[in-house]
Amino acid sequence: MTKGPIALRAADVPPRARATSYPADLAAKMAGREKRVLGDLFGLANFGVNLTRLAPGAASSLHHARAKQDEFVYILEGRPTLVVGTEARLLSPGDCAGFAAGGAPHHLVNRSDRDVVYLEVGDRTPGDSATYPEDDLVATADPAGGWRYTRKDGTPL
Amino acid sequence: MTKGPIALRAADVPPRARATSYPADLAAKMAGREKRVLGDLFGLANFGVNLTRLAPGAASSLHHARAKQDEFVYILEGRPTLVVGTEARLLSPGDCAGFAAGGAPHHLVNRSDRDVVYLEVGDRTPGDSATYPEDDLVATADPAGGWRYTRKDGTPL
Repeated sequence: MTKGPIALRAADVPPRARATSYPADLAAKMAGREKRVLGDLFGLANFGVNLTRLAPGAASSLHHARAKQDEFVYILEGRPTLVVGTEARLLSPGDCAGFAAGGAPHHLVNRSDRDVVYLEVGDRTPGDSATYPEDDLVATADPAGGWRYTRKDGTPL
Repeated sequence: MTKGPIALRAADVPPRARATSYPADLAAKMAGREKRVLGDLFGLANFGVNLTRLAPGAASSLHHARAKQDEFVYILEGRPTLVVGTEARLLSPGDCAGFAAGGAPHHLVNRSDRDVVYLEVGDRTPGDSATYPEDDLVATADPAGGWRYTRKDGTPL
């Protein structure tokens, strides 16, 4: 039958302890981002759902594109700027965006003076990889569920 | 590069034309439910995201459990009652619930006098099936993405 809670208040879930898996020099760019992992608490395995808060100046991730996994965001609070390729759009609560695998690079940046809160969803299709047009970084999913990072020439970071 | 919109106001998306795929006698139980399909508009294939509205008296689905696909809901407006197995819980905006594949049967029912609005997410793992403890119904995913329904003894509806 049910394991764990049948429902949770999302904002009451403690933030994830590890702020980012990016290598140290790039991890600094994720300052001000706080993720509450929701889906895993219910035993979901096929996709993840996080409640993510961006302080002013923070970003959802490096500008990136994934090869196999789809992503989706729904804005709950605040006004993040969505950057897709070279296009930028100011979003509001109730706005949503989806990023199909193999599509343009994207991320959210909080250029406002108020916190931004959004839901993010991503599936866990195995064998994914991510490219970062603005950073000297390539990510490859490892079978344990994490990411392995190298420079674009394949050398370690 | 990007195909289609880079972002959408979820409430501006027209409701799905077909209210439910349930057979006619059970479809009547879905009166008052309106789904806005969001993920597909961005070309997402690995999971679906809908913005769903339940009028007073409406339900998210029949009480059901899935064999392979995970599901997740996040309440945006109103106070639905979540029923998991035989347990019922009144939810509020900001509450969320996940339903792992192979878990207890579940659905949301709007027993209040105001509309309920929530986001629902489900992955598209192939070969899924659904069981309905309160109804004489079994659903099997067909490869085209729809559902094939029979009675529990295998006979057609």
